[in-house]
Amino acid sequence: MNIKPLYDRVVIEPQEAEEKTASGIYIPDTAQKDRPQTGKVVSVGEGKVLASGELKPLTVKVGDTVLFSKYGPTEVTVEGKEYLVAKEEEILAIVA
Amino acid sequence: MNIKPLYDRVVIEPQEAEEKTASGIYIPDTAQKDRPQTGKVVSVGEGKVLASGELKPLTVKVGDTVLFSKYGPTEVTVEGKEYLVAKEEEILAIVA
Amino acid sequence: MNIKPLYDRVVIEPQEAEEKTASGIYIPDTAQKDRPQTGKVVSVGEGKVLASGELKPLTVKVGDTVLFSKYGPTEVTVEGKEYLVAKEEEILAIVA
Amino acid sequence: MNIKPLYDRVVIEPQEAEEKTASGIYIPDTAQKDRPQTGKVVSVGEGKVLASGELKPLTVKVGDTVLFSKYGPTEVTVEGKEYLVAKEEEILAIVA
Amino acid sequence: MNIKPLYDRVVIEPQEAEEKTASGIYIPDTAQKDRPQTGKVVSVGEGKVLASGELKPLTVKVGDTVLFSKYGPTEVTVEGKEYLVAKEEEILAIVA
Amino acid sequence: MNIKPLYDRVVIEPQEAEEKTASGIYIPDTAQKDRPQTGKVVSVGEGKVLASGELKPLTVKVGDTVLFSKYGPTEVTVEGKEYLVAKEEEILAIVA
Amino acid sequence: MNIKPLYDRVVIEPQEAEEKTASGIYIPDTAQKDRPQTGKVVSVGEGKVLASGELKPLTVKVGDTVLFSKYGPTEVTVEGKEYLVAKEEEILAIVA
Repeated sequence: MNIKPLYDRVVIEPQEAEEKTASGIYIPDTAQKDRPQTGKVVSVGEGKVLASGELKPLTVKVGDTVLFSKYGPTEVTVEGKEYLVAKEEEILAIVA
Repeated sequence: MNIKPLYDRVVIEPQEAEEKTASGIYIPDTAQKDRPQTGKVVSVGEGKVLASGELKPLTVKVGDTVLFSKYGPTEVTVEGKEYLVAKEEEILAIVA
Repeated sequence: MNIKPLYDRVVIEPQEAEEKTASGIYIPDTAQKDRPQTGKVVSVGEGKVLASGELKPLTVKVGDTVLFSKYGPTEVTVEGKEYLVAKEEEILAIVA
Repeated sequence: MNIKPLYDRVVIEPQEAEEKTASGIYIPDTAQKDRPQTGKVVSVGEGKVLASGELKPLTVKVGDTVLFSKYGPTEVTVEGKEYLVAKEEEILAIVA
Repeated sequence: MNIKPLYDRVVIEPQEAEEKTASGIYIPDTAQKDRPQTGKVVSVGEGKVLASGELKPLTVKVGDTVLFSKYGPTEVTVEGKEYLVAKEEEILAIVA
Repeated sequence: MNIKPLYDRVVIEPQEAEEKTASGIYIPDTAQKDRPQTGKVVSVGEGKVLASGELKPLTVKVGDTVLFSKYGPTEVTVEGKEYLVAKEEEILAIVA
Repeated sequence: MNIKPLYDRVVIEPQEAEEKTASGIYIPDTAQKDRPQTGKVVSVGEGKVLASGELKPLTVKVGDTVLFSKYGPTEVTVEGKEYLVAKEEEILAIVA
């Protein structure tokens, strides 16, 4: 994986909405418009830039399964695969 | 319950609008559009990120019954059950 | 009264627009669209969260009659009675 | 006068646009749409809340004749008389 | 001149767009829609309120000829004469 | 040149889009709608006002050729010549 | 290359969407509307201005291949070649 997100951004490998995830989250296809999605974090930035200029490391780690709003993240295609780049504040929760 | 919300977010199990809650809040179905809803907090984040980067722990605790605006929180489905993910600032009050 | 508002929110028992209040405020029904309303404060939050994370206690106290904009506060129904939840900054004045 | 405005708000007794004020400001009726109005300050709040939580006392004093934008202030009726509640930042100038 | 603007506001006596100003600025009538105007400062406020609550004195002085956007300032009429009340940040430049 | 811009503003003498600039920037007329323009800085303000009230001197100097967005700056006419007044943050780059 | 971007801006030489990049990012032409683009950084500003007025040097370096949103950056033409000027916050990730 060769994308290093900047600052408070993370790269997410989205999970198919129709597959039941390891944590049992299941979002039926018909119900999922405007619903958040889950995905696996594959790369994280160095941290959020505070007003002082210091970096605050992210809470989210590589390997976390995260729940995020469908609208914030940006879709990118790397080596033929779809990823999402999201700001950490667009991530709602970590699913364990 | 396997969802850990980030920072100042909480996970809420919504209560049916037509059931009379323990605290006696009753919102008739016909009057409830644009009205806040009640629910039970099942998981809370570590705290709100201040401008300094420090975390301020949330006031809301797991088990609290809360009153919140219908529009802020995001609906999620976990193991077939509906939950809401809200920022603490979208919670109006704790009902005791 | 079992609703504890969060932070800088207060719970208000609204006064009927057509009744003349103790302080003599009278807002005729025909003139009151887009006008502020009066009510009695029945519960207050712990204080406004400052940028530093500290809480600044509210000025408004339980028992105060307050004047507020009709549009900011949120209507809630508790034990069959109507209340309003407002941020203190939506309160225009205390009527004595 | 029984209204105590909160923080950086003031209560103003508006002057009729068609009367010539003491300071000689005259705004003809036909020219006054979208024009500011004048009024007399009858009550002031304790001060503007700074980011630190401290109060900065207002510059405007009870008795001042002030010039303000027609759109910011909120109309209220107390004991049958019309008043306006304005934030100090909506006041353009003090007329002496 | 009896208007004392508050904080970072200034009172400006506008110059006719069709007259050639002392500094040689000439804005032909047909070209002046959406163009800035010039005027003479006749009164200034005590200063801009900083986040700390301190006042920062204005740069603009009484007697300065200033160039400003037509849209920001508010028109007022004092003793039958037209003036403008502008925030200092709406002033583009001092013309010497 | 008799215009002294305030704070973080600069006065720019725009270059004709159809002339090839010294630095070789050429923007053909047909391609230039919504494109940035170049110009020469003829006057600069004293600096940007920081939150503390201090002035931070500008990076742009008199004589610099700058690239700027067409939409931010305001057109002014001085002694029959067209100039632009821009905030320094509307300047994209210095062309050397 | 003769463009020096100001502060937190960078100049990017965009890569053709239809060419497969060194890092294997391939965005087919039909899928690329509203998609981010890649490019090579050819010049960077001195740093982002913090609230204190200090400059925080950029993370992005000359030579980096970056992924950015199509909508933020501004297109410029220098010596007949197309470049983009972007704020660093508009850059999603560095591609290695």
